[in-house]
Amino acid sequence: MSSHIIALVTDFGSEDGYAAAMKGRILSLTPGVTLVDVSHDITPYNIRQAAFALNNCYPYFPPKTIFVVVVDPGVGTERNGLVIKTSQYYFIGPDNGVFSFIYAREAYQAYRIVLHQMEVTISPTFHGRDVFAPIAAKIAANKNIGNYLAETREVVSFLHPPVRTSEKTFTLEALTIDHFGNIILNFHKKDWQKLGNTPNISVVINDQTLNGIHETFGKTGEGELLLTWDSSDYLQIACNKGNAAERLQFSLTDSIQLKIW
Amino acid sequence: MSSHIIALVTDFGSEDGYAAAMKGRILSLTPGVTLVDVSHDITPYNIRQAAFALNNCYPYFPPKTIFVVVVDPGVGTERNGLVIKTSQYYFIGPDNGVFSFIYAREAYQAYRIVLHQMEVTISPTFHGRDVFAPIAAKIAANKNIGNYLAETREVVSFLHPPVRTSEKTFTLEALTIDHFGNIILNFHKKDWQKLGNTPNISVVINDQTLNGIHETFGKTGEGELLLTWDSSDYLQIACNKGNAAERLQFSLTDSIQLKIW
Amino acid sequence: MSSHIIALVTDFGSEDGYAAAMKGRILSLTPGVTLVDVSHDITPYNIRQAAFALNNCYPYFPPKTIFVVVVDPGVGTERNGLVIKTSQYYFIGPDNGVFSFIYAREAYQAYRIVLHQMEVTISPTFHGRDVFAPIAAKIAANKNIGNYLAETREVVSFLHPPVRTSEKTFTLEALTIDHFGNIILNFHKKDWQKLGNTPNISVVINDQTLNGIHETFGKTGEGELLLTWDSSDYLQIACNKGNAAERLQFSLTDSIQLKIW
Repeated sequence: MSSHIIALVTDFGSEDGYAAAMKGRILSLTPGVTLVDVSHDITPYNIRQAAFALNNCYPYFPPKTIFVVVVDPGVGTERNGLVIKTSQYYFIGPDNGVFSFIYAREAYQAYRIVLHQMEVTISPTFHGRDVFAPIAAKIAANKNIGNYLAETREVVSFLHPPVRTSEKTFTLEALTIDHFGNIILNFHKKDWQKLGNTPNISVVINDQTLNGIHETFGKTGEGELLLTWDSSDYLQIACNKGNAAERLQFSLTDSIQLKIW
Repeated sequence: MSSHIIALVTDFGSEDGYAAAMKGRILSLTPGVTLVDVSHDITPYNIRQAAFALNNCYPYFPPKTIFVVVVDPGVGTERNGLVIKTSQYYFIGPDNGVFSFIYAREAYQAYRIVLHQMEVTISPTFHGRDVFAPIAAKIAANKNIGNYLAETREVVSFLHPPVRTSEKTFTLEALTIDHFGNIILNFHKKDWQKLGNTPNISVVINDQTLNGIHETFGKTGEGELLLTWDSSDYLQIACNKGNAAERLQFSLTDSIQLKIW
Repeated sequence: MSSHIIALVTDFGSEDGYAAAMKGRILSLTPGVTLVDVSHDITPYNIRQAAFALNNCYPYFPPKTIFVVVVDPGVGTERNGLVIKTSQYYFIGPDNGVFSFIYAREAYQAYRIVLHQMEVTISPTFHGRDVFAPIAAKIAANKNIGNYLAETREVVSFLHPPVRTSEKTFTLEALTIDHFGNIILNFHKKDWQKLGNTPNISVVINDQTLNGIHETFGKTGEGELLLTWDSSDYLQIACNKGNAAERLQFSLTDSIQLKIW
């Protein structure tokens, strides 16, 4: 009986049984392992959303937790499968950016998965079930999987730092839009603290200017837009009891300016 | 290893990893606890829907189960966090009505959570992860949390009894609309039985009159509206193989009359 | 403490707590059992989708797993409840076709549930909670449930083989449309292999002709339609990084022709 936890992030939905096939395979290989559904409702092929979900939850799990992330539009092509090892966790999934936040926050070793070593039949469209789930199960069973892995130094990330365009201005990117319509920006509390003296901040987005960082939603009027830190300390544009992205008719490619004063 | 069950109700969706952060924190604090997802798909900020979901499931869980309900539009404001203790269960969440059915059905003691006693960093926007989850985990680990709690007598409820408007008529409220489009009314089988002689019933709603209580959907024609008891014995307006709320173009503020004869 | 797994497929959604009521009842009757959510997001009353989800996952679960499937538009009418026993698994649910794939793939014994033997109060609208969940829990606790069951030989299936309309042509049916918009056809890799010499295949659907079977999505252009085997080896119409059903404006009753050459 394994005392490990395996946490799952996929874009499979649940209505086709694909995520359950992964769960069944894991429970067959490693009885007693604890499965946690992080999400199976990632928007299909939305790598950024999966990375964001993983980033919001992984630090709260116990050491040795194994995260399996299967948002994998390139399945069956030449993209690598990865096992990422940090001091506390394992992360398993495709090399397409789903682990971008991990690379930014953790010291890690990266291994690509050598498929032809796996001695199993692998569906070209379902590595979640046939590659990533079995590898997670074997790690949870404390089996040696070294022969499936080859160290690698190049991994794919979509995470870019804010771009300073003048002494007082930055161009930001939206990392994702969350379930409540909050727009999450690539500007971390640490980026702000590095500016010294915790300066005032304004964000200009779709012809609106939002001034100052609020501590919480509830202290502004209902339906008002505001800036606040999200629960992982990224700057976010929120709307008290409303949906900021809809209010701003925002799409992920719209330009965002940050000013300090 | 804890033998407790912690059951979770939130409006977080799953695609951002917020509910998973709660799960991770609970598993970190109390290894071996059994987590049950009741729902993370409550419509954002829909307190009535969360209360209804809790009401439909809690009596079926084993004694000592701990329910954590995080539908919390007032997070970070002055609203209290609560721990509600009944003879069998614990309920943890904000004081905004999510426990309305518990107050109506159970003898209980209510405690408000004294945040400054918790000696942890608390995100002003995420008490689910930083307040309610750790308290649930500590209860599941049989730790004394008395120093975080202060007894309270006033709690918020949205549940009102039917209003008698004449000898034979009542004004009802819709408690919620369920996943199948059934309209659930604030008229319980016990309210009916109190009328004596189990009288015939009609409900008038959006210019339609529905007569009599049916035992099940399948005995009416497909697409027909009917009155029946829901699985928690509230009167509901259902539609055989269809969606009653859509058929009636019903919104929660529309008026509903009940007649007995 | 039971070492069994009970896997759940329902169309209850999660926002009303109905699926959680089943989970609570199971955990009350059989402490320690492992619950796995296959799906609670089956489209309401969609028997084919539930059958497809079950088919995609059941073979990967450990022996003795108990599957409970509650997509049950006929609840409370004369339709039977079933317990299906195969060499490895139990399947519990209504006799309306949800087990069609099991009948096609496995040797099985079928039993109908004799309700009046169950000595419990049974809601006419919620056999999931009051009939199927308790029976699953009792099987998981290794209790004898023989007195609730009566052997039966007739069960309902919606699965039809491809219809040969000439030496080189077949009429196919769509089994379902999956989460990604793939259209799954009633033509299995085994049907193809039986034709001998693994012939070339074309599918004609809504005025489009798709030629040849591709090994994976990624090797065609983005947005292109293609034929491929799904992860359970049924022929499917897919769209690389897109939604095939939307592209073809396909509905389940549209006609589909297969040609071999």
